Amino acid sequence: MSDLADLTAKYREFSKERDWEKFHDPRSLILALVGEVGELAELFQWEDPEVNESEISRTALQQRASEEVADVFLYLIRLADVLQIDLLQAANLKLTRAEERFPISRFSGIAPSKLA
Amino acid sequence: MSDLADLTAKYREFSKERDWEKFHDPRSLILALVGEVGELAELFQWEDPEVNESEISRTALQQRASEEVADVFLYLIRLADVLQIDLLQAANLKLTRAEERFPISRFSGIAPSKLA
Amino acid sequence: MSDLADLTAKYREFSKERDWEKFHDPRSLILALVGEVGELAELFQWEDPEVNESEISRTALQQRASEEVADVFLYLIRLADVLQIDLLQAANLKLTRAEERFPISRFSGIAPSKLA
Amino acid sequence: MSDLADLTAKYREFSKERDWEKFHDPRSLILALVGEVGELAELFQWEDPEVNESEISRTALQQRASEEVADVFLYLIRLADVLQIDLLQAANLKLTRAEERFPISRFSGIAPSKLA
Repeated sequence: MSDLADLTAKYREFSKERDWEKFHDPRSLILALVGEVGELAELFQWEDPEVNESEISRTALQQRASEEVADVFLYLIRLADVLQIDLLQAANLKLTRAEERFPISRFSGIAPSKLA
Repeated sequence: MSDLADLTAKYREFSKERDWEKFHDPRSLILALVGEVGELAELFQWEDPEVNESEISRTALQQRASEEVADVFLYLIRLADVLQIDLLQAANLKLTRAEERFPISRFSGIAPSKLA
Repeated sequence: MSDLADLTAKYREFSKERDWEKFHDPRSLILALVGEVGELAELFQWEDPEVNESEISRTALQQRASEEVADVFLYLIRLADVLQIDLLQAANLKLTRAEERFPISRFSGIAPSKLA
Repeated sequence: MSDLADLTAKYREFSKERDWEKFHDPRSLILALVGEVGELAELFQWEDPEVNESEISRTALQQRASEEVADVFLYLIRLADVLQIDLLQAANLKLTRAEERFPISRFSGIAPSKLA
């Protein structure tokens, strides 16, 4: 129904209509993003739910996780828009570079300390 | 060139080829995401660069920010994939709900404590 | 009334009495810490309150900030205890090293990209 | 050798001597704190090291964790100082309240969604 460009435009319009663009400087958006990442972390903080949760509570967790992941995503989209970053292009570039930096033959089953 | 579904599939394939899927449980991916959010925050930690940086250093900052934003995005994509969350749909839903919760007439120029 | 060693011991006892030590592995505590850092960030996300808040709301903010800072501190204390890290000693060492790395003559008024 | 009040004073002096106090507003310090939390998260992102690391690499991890925990602690101390928060008192208050909110009889072995 929608792609990333549509969503970016929708959020931009949402901000403009409410005169909220003035709040959306990079530092404010990063702090807001951190707030949402915190809520996401909280959902998973005490245990790996896949291990010992029942089917019902797993569904509830998945629903809540979906909301928090969406919140993080929205602030990331807005931040990228404000910074004039093409999210898809930037991420594609990074992933392509990761393919080169971590050849299959050498990194099979071995996690590097970090992806990028 | 690519949309979000392609990028999600590309990252999934990247993980499968390297036998890295075993590392990509939700908690591990959230910790990795936090690591990248930390690098993003660090870029903007001491001042609002838009205020007093020269044109040249702003370009350098924009380039570095692009890389960190991309890293956060990639882990978020992977996390959503592992949790079977449709990122675009979930974010669209959240934004639509925010439009209802924050009517233009009442919230013009007034930032709520949080978007969602 | 209390020093850091007392507080560390009090939290350890609190955890033991409730049989919560099993939840306090490093990864879980870091995720919990991230949750509290998120709440702290949220308090300051939209503007610098010192600029345009009234005296009353500044007091309210200071009170809420005090609670969130305390939550972050508590998880940090617990994490250090679990990892057998002497917080005061480790921080003193880092600060002493920073004094050497950033001589006053060269860094006066100039923020390094990071402290440590 | 040193207690928390000494460390707070030492960091305050360190900042004053370098004319860095102007950088230490709450938002900047929170962003810096997030940067250090990110480095801490990164150390533990891929697996629980206690499970399958050798003794040697556990020592290395413990050393690196000690440095990152110290960095988080230092920014937290500085933030508390700037916000005129008594860290020990605030944390003691929170822990005392947690003792009341989570009676041993009812919460033994059961992690609440969050401590505070």
